[in-house]
Amino acid sequence: MSWLKSWRKQAAPLRKLRGRDEQSESTKVALEKLAPPITHFLGLVAYLQLEVFEAASRAVAAAPTLEAKETLSTAAGLALDKHQAFTEEMRRRGLEPFQVMQPFTPIIDDYIERIESDDWLEGVLNVYLVAGLFDAFFSELAGGVRDPYAEVAREVLDGTTGREEVAALLAQQIEADPRIGDRLALWGRRIVGDSLLVARSALVLSENKSQDDESIEPVFSELIATHIRRMDGLGLTA
Amino acid sequence: MSWLKSWRKQAAPLRKLRGRDEQSESTKVALEKLAPPITHFLGLVAYLQLEVFEAASRAVAAAPTLEAKETLSTAAGLALDKHQAFTEEMRRRGLEPFQVMQPFTPIIDDYIERIESDDWLEGVLNVYLVAGLFDAFFSELAGGVRDPYAEVAREVLDGTTGREEVAALLAQQIEADPRIGDRLALWGRRIVGDSLLVARSALVLSENKSQDDESIEPVFSELIATHIRRMDGLGLTA
Repeated sequence: MSWLKSWRKQAAPLRKLRGRDEQSESTKVALEKLAPPITHFLGLVAYLQLEVFEAASRAVAAAPTLEAKETLSTAAGLALDKHQAFTEEMRRRGLEPFQVMQPFTPIIDDYIERIESDDWLEGVLNVYLVAGLFDAFFSELAGGVRDPYAEVAREVLDGTTGREEVAALLAQQIEADPRIGDRLALWGRRIVGDSLLVARSALVLSENKSQDDESIEPVFSELIATHIRRMDGLGLTA
Repeated sequence: MSWLKSWRKQAAPLRKLRGRDEQSESTKVALEKLAPPITHFLGLVAYLQLEVFEAASRAVAAAPTLEAKETLSTAAGLALDKHQAFTEEMRRRGLEPFQVMQPFTPIIDDYIERIESDDWLEGVLNVYLVAGLFDAFFSELAGGVRDPYAEVAREVLDGTTGREEVAALLAQQIEADPRIGDRLALWGRRIVGDSLLVARSALVLSENKSQDDESIEPVFSELIATHIRRMDGLGLTA
């Protein structure tokens, strides 16, 4: 897992993110190798969005103010919209959504359980970071999926997320109490490793055996860079 | 609370529901007396839909199968859509949604806490019955609200709910095990009283002091009739 061990070292020079059009040659090659078949891709993204929706809903339920409830319920609704866009596409293909998602539930459920927190703000940070990581990861990956729907999937994943408002909510709390920032910085570091591991395992599960650490590395390096940017934006050390 | 004590007695002849166009004269009069100002109406319906969304989300999280998750997340999304339609209308009027909803949160939160259940199927029945009762109640009530938006609000409340699928999910479980039906019949009887009480308290909170048990009675009788129809539809004794 060289990509995981060395992420902090690598991350620094990557802070300046390349635009999508300038996607590096190595990333392009990696994506073509890694991309799962469209059905697996749909199952993965649909179930992950459902889990983001569930995580956001939990944060709605635990929110201490109505303002926070508004922000988080908007984010929950947008994740659910994405989920439903993917399940509609499955139905259009004559597939039952629950059957398509089923193979990916154990690994994702296990992950969600690991990152779940009883602390409301840690839960909100989960929504922000996890949704951000996976939208970016699968949007990149869609670039390698050989199917006309891949481009649509990319647009869905890149669409409105309501995350700016979630970030503002977190930033507000962090500004009010520096100890919150320290705690959330630790939490952010904890969940990024798990998130990358699940992204990798999801690829293995999708039965695309060709990937190895070398081809995954550039994709994950970009992901880590976007993660750091999100943490920076909150004033947290990644 | 004569309307509450006598509901079982009254309910029988009401099983044949009047269509909306045949709304009785007494109901019309009652609605005009009862209807709160538009801002209070918006605060009430928006917060109730948010709570239906939360209840449905809890049921999604606890669902034992992906099929059930699909059904319940659709219902959750539709309640959230309604909530968002109402908060958009508040913003259009230059009002902050959380401020408009705030006065109605204690009574509704208290109610939600009372009807919450650790049992997944009881939670699903809550979503089905509570959302059904309140959509119908506030749709009726909109008929007496003096504001151009009232008609739109009515359409929003009468819109797609995803509840037929929730009912099918419950019916499936009840058919599979008659003991589930017995338990759910009891649960349904338990929550209807609380639901009607909160509907009544919501009206009092909205500072419309003119209502009394007599004017509320016809409205609640109709509500109870629709409740009984929902229970009948599940094969449960109301």
